[in-house]
Order: sequence, then C-alpha cells, then structure tokens
Amino acid sequence: MTDLNPKTTIRILTTGGTIEKSYCESEGTLKNRASIIRDGLIASLRLPYTHLELESVLNKDSLEMDDSDRMQVCSAIAATAEAGDPIVILHGTDTMAVTAEYCYQQMGTPKVPVVFTGAMKPMGFIDSDARQNVTEALLTARLMEPGFYIAFHNRVFRIPGARKNLETGTFEAV
Amino acid sequence: MTDLNPKTTIRILTTGGTIEKSYCESEGTLKNRASIIRDGLIASLRLPYTHLELESVLNKDSLEMDDSDRMQVCSAIAATAEAGDPIVILHGTDTMAVTAEYCYQQMGTPKVPVVFTGAMKPMGFIDSDARQNVTEALLTARLMEPGFYIAFHNRVFRIPGARKNLETGTFEAV
Amino acid sequence: MTDLNPKTTIRILTTGGTIEKSYCESEGTLKNRASIIRDGLIASLRLPYTHLELESVLNKDSLEMDDSDRMQVCSAIAATAEAGDPIVILHGTDTMAVTAEYCYQQMGTPKVPVVFTGAMKPMGFIDSDARQNVTEALLTARLMEPGFYIAFHNRVFRIPGARKNLETGTFEAV
Amino acid sequence: MTDLNPKTTIRILTTGGTIEKSYCESEGTLKNRASIIRDGLIASLRLPYTHLELESVLNKDSLEMDDSDRMQVCSAIAATAEAGDPIVILHGTDTMAVTAEYCYQQMGTPKVPVVFTGAMKPMGFIDSDARQNVTEALLTARLMEPGFYIAFHNRVFRIPGARKNLETGTFEAV
Repeated sequence: MTDLNPKTTIRILTTGGTIEKSYCESEGTLKNRASIIRDGLIASLRLPYTHLELESVLNKDSLEMDDSDRMQVCSAIAATAEAGDPIVILHGTDTMAVTAEYCYQQMGTPKVPVVFTGAMKPMGFIDSDARQNVTEALLTARLMEPGFYIAFHNRVFRIPGARKNLETGTFEAV
Repeated sequence: MTDLNPKTTIRILTTGGTIEKSYCESEGTLKNRASIIRDGLIASLRLPYTHLELESVLNKDSLEMDDSDRMQVCSAIAATAEAGDPIVILHGTDTMAVTAEYCYQQMGTPKVPVVFTGAMKPMGFIDSDARQNVTEALLTARLMEPGFYIAFHNRVFRIPGARKNLETGTFEAV
Repeated sequence: MTDLNPKTTIRILTTGGTIEKSYCESEGTLKNRASIIRDGLIASLRLPYTHLELESVLNKDSLEMDDSDRMQVCSAIAATAEAGDPIVILHGTDTMAVTAEYCYQQMGTPKVPVVFTGAMKPMGFIDSDARQNVTEALLTARLMEPGFYIAFHNRVFRIPGARKNLETGTFEAV
Repeated sequence: MTDLNPKTTIRILTTGGTIEKSYCESEGTLKNRASIIRDGLIASLRLPYTHLELESVLNKDSLEMDDSDRMQVCSAIAATAEAGDPIVILHGTDTMAVTAEYCYQQMGTPKVPVVFTGAMKPMGFIDSDARQNVTEALLTARLMEPGFYIAFHNRVFRIPGARKNLETGTFEAV
C-alpha cells in the first residue's frame, strides 16, 4: 500500500441503483438521478487529498441489467483503468455481485483496484447507508492492490467471493 | 488481509477530544461525554458482521494530555491487544499524532492493528466529519496488518509518519 | 386565543399520504407506514407543554381516497372532537383540500380547531418538509378558533379557501 | 387574521444567542456568527409565499446584554416596524423575556407583531430546536395581531407574561 502521496485521483462510475434514487415530488415516486451523487453525497465528505472524477455509465435499477449492460460496464472500466487511478463503481445491490463477477470473468485482474458499492436505502434518507458505503469504497480504492472488490457495511470482499443476502440486506462471503 | 470471517470484534478505546464533545444546554458549552459515541455514532452505522466493544480510557481535550495520560493510553492498548482483536482509538486531533508516536516508541509494533481517529467537528453537528472518520478507522482496523495508524479524511497514515496541519484542518504525511 | 395553560392535548389523526411513506429496503419502494410518525417525527420536536394522542384512521395515498374514505375521516373527526381538544389531520396533499372541504360541507364548523397538513416529501428524507408542516399545524391547532384549516409552508388557510398548486408544489388561496 | 395574501414580507432581526452559535474548528469553541441563519436555517424551510429580510442588530450572548444593548434592539424594532411588516427577533434564551418586556415598557404595543424566538441548542446540531422555533415564530408573525410575543416549543406567549424556566429548558407563562 502506498498512501503517502497527496491528491490521489479516484474515478467514480455510476450505473444507477438504489443509491442514486431521489424523490420526485410531482409523481411521489423514487427515480434514478445521477446528479445527486455529487451534490448530496460527495459534498458531505471531507476529501482534502482526494480528487474525484465522476462519470455516468448507466442509470438503471440493477434488476433490469442484462449482459449487454454489463458489457458496457466492463468497457467503461477498461477504458477508465487506462488512467491508472483506482475506480469506484456505484451499482444496485441486487445484482452488484453478478456484475462484478462478470467483469472479472471478462477482464481478469484489472490494472487498478475496482471497488463496487451501493446502498440499501437511497442517499436522500436520514438513515441511508450510502455515505458509509461510499466512504468505505473510497478508502478501499486507496488501500488495496489491483483487483475487483465489493466494499459494504464495514467489510471488503474480494471478487469472486461475495453475494447479496436478501434476508439480512447486506453482503456475505461465499 | 483476511476479511472473509463474519463477526469480527473491534475494540474502541475512547480518550475524549472533539469527536466526543456534546452540547450542554444549561451551560451553553461543549463538554466531553463518552456516552454519545455509542448512541449517536455507532448506532448510525450498519455493522452486521462487526461486534464492537467500547471502553473509556480518558476523557480529555487532547491539548491537556501529558505523558502520564499517554502512558495510560499505552497501557490500555497493551492490555486490550491481548484479546487479539483490532483496536480503534478515538482521540483529539491536536495531539493525536503525538500520542500515536509515543505509543509506537513505547511499544514498537503492537500485536494488532491500532488505528487512531477523531474529528474536526463534534459528532452532534450536521456536518461533522466524525462519522466519516470512524467509518474509515473501522475499515482500516479490519484491512491492515498489525501496526499504528491514523485514519482520517479518506487517508491512512502509518505511524510514525503523520502530523496535523493546523491551517488545513486535516492530517498530512511527514 | 388562550395559550397560557400548560399541557394542552392535541389529537393527531393519520390518514396516510406522502408524509407517512417510508422506504421498504427489500422491495426498494415507498410504502405508507403510520408508525414512523411517532418515532421519527414527533420524537424530534420539543413539546414540553403539549400532550399528543395519535390515532390511525386510514393509510392511503390520497389520490385513492373516495367519498366513503372521506366519510370515515369525518366520523373520526366528529368522534375525536367530543374530547374538546384541537385536532391535526395528516393527509396526502393531492386531495387534502378536497377532504377538508368535504368535512366542512358535512359538519359545518366543528367544535374545535381541525388543522390538515401533510408533506411534499416523505419525512424520512433529509430535506423533507414534514417537520416544518407538522410544527406549523400543531401551533395553528393551539392558536386558532374552531374551524377547518390547512397549515402548510408557513401559511394557514381557512377551509373552504385553499387548493393545491401542482406546479409549485404548495397550497394557495382561492 | 388575514393570511390570504401571497408573498408576505417578514423582517428578521438577529441579536446573537445560542441559535446563531457555530463551531469554530481551529479553536474548538462555539462562536456567534449571524451568517449561518440564512444559509443553514432559512434555506432549509419552504417559504413559497414569504419573503424574508434579515438584519443583524447585535451579536451577543444574551447574558452579556445590558440596557444600552436593549435600547438598541428597541430602536431597531421601531425603525423596522415603519415598513408595516411583521418582525421576528432571534435572541438568546437567557434574557429573551427581559428584552421583550423592556421593549414593551419602552414602546407599548408596536405597530406590527414582534415575535421573539431562539434555541436551547445551536442550529448546527442534528437535534437543535432552532428550526422548530423559527418555524413557529414565522407563523406566529403572520397570524397574530400587533404586540410582543415569544414563540417557543409549540407555545406562543404574550409579553409581558413569560419567563425562562432554567430547569426545564423552556419558557413558561407567568
């Protein structure tokens, strides 16, 4: 681990999922809107030595993702990894492990740490886990060697090796 | 790193500092009260596979700590490390690096990861950095090999090797 | 107005609507659950001289209410007003003015102040207007003479005399 | 009461006190800074038909106010009342009732409603009562006839007629 150098860049790719859902007052429903990540979540963290670059790849409920969507995520990871900076992927929890493993099957070990995270509760809620999970993913991206990971609820899982537990609402090792 | 085992125990030692300050309404001042850590901060994090044990060692503004206080922190670390679980120390930022280095000088490399953290703004404030820093310290405690560290604002510093920057209100490598 | 007597009782009738929606993590959707009113909202207000009694009358999106639902609200108001305490009704905003006017047509001027309120954004959200509107409704219930009112966004409307403006997301006088 | 007209102006005079205290990270102390009222508190309320004008009169802990400070508050009220709009005064709770009664003795009944409020806990805290009290004061300013009032914790007190209860941390009628 090399964490002594100031102003590390971390590249965040957003794909939709619960973490990006925000409330539409006219319709009374939750919708995916990537814009809330920067203003709502990133702005609330103190990152004096971290430069973030955000890019929106998809904007989907992860239950609706198919292999063509996953291929698009892979391509974005491959292109982004060329810059040599660690990557964080915001993704719906329901198929996060599926996408992460798909990317691993396609790409093998990537050039940089690629850390998936998301949230059980959208980030606009008072008791959302979005801020905790993003905090953990950003730190994992700095600390780990190249590879695919899921960071969630104070744990870091190497991919392959994790799945969502629907009953407990978190990830577990396999 | 071994992060696959469920229900890791992390032992938190509190020593006071800004992170524990809470507002006394009758006096209109900020006071150190350890009790807010569990109810206010820990309760807001999702830690399904982490068991926390809290112990109060001191309850001081870190500017008022002297070597006898620091010796007390060392002794608490040594005694707590016997259990073999990673340790997080909540400490005032002003002399956090001093205490961490003091412990390193006294103890050398400890048996477990020992991660110091704290906050620039008390945890009761809407825009406190306490939750972010504790989230980072708890993850650092799980991920790193035995040694002394400071986790703060999306960075992990190996001790010796960090100091507080009073102007920017964060830590930097030395 | 008579506001000098300590421990006024205010009776809150809940009917559903946006204000009571809470997030269901397993389904990823918003659902009406009355229980969040007491724990989430009432608990966050300081009401040293106010005793609240909560009763759930309905649990519906107000767009789905029909006249039989409205008759049920009327009956609950009439029965509750017998106690002589002011009443606050939590109601969806879309048909709040319709229900309030329906009750006025059925009952004329009630024995006590009856104040409708609700929210554009569910109360679990960081930037919900639920706490503001409930604060205003509770104060209106204390200050006004018997009659039907809507309290919302720093305004009090006498009923009949208000309608929701869908474009601006608030109420206006008619 | 006349509440049907859109875009009522309410004039807020700030005098310091707990409600305006914000945390100074370099000193670790609470200081009075009027600027947080607009950005932190007013911005969090929905006031589509209310125009606010803020003016800073003093910036003091109310325990340090003397009669010359109170005379300054009176003069500001008298000058501001000329515009004909209701007035809200943000004031420390410890001598709020003293200042309000002082103004009443000097001025008799003012031309407009003048509503004092403040907070037991500074507005930057998660569980501050500032937002509740300001919400109540703004509504009281709209609803009441000309006179001096204190709005606090779901009650409105006519002045003279209120005092702070130090033990319970709220106001009570006298």
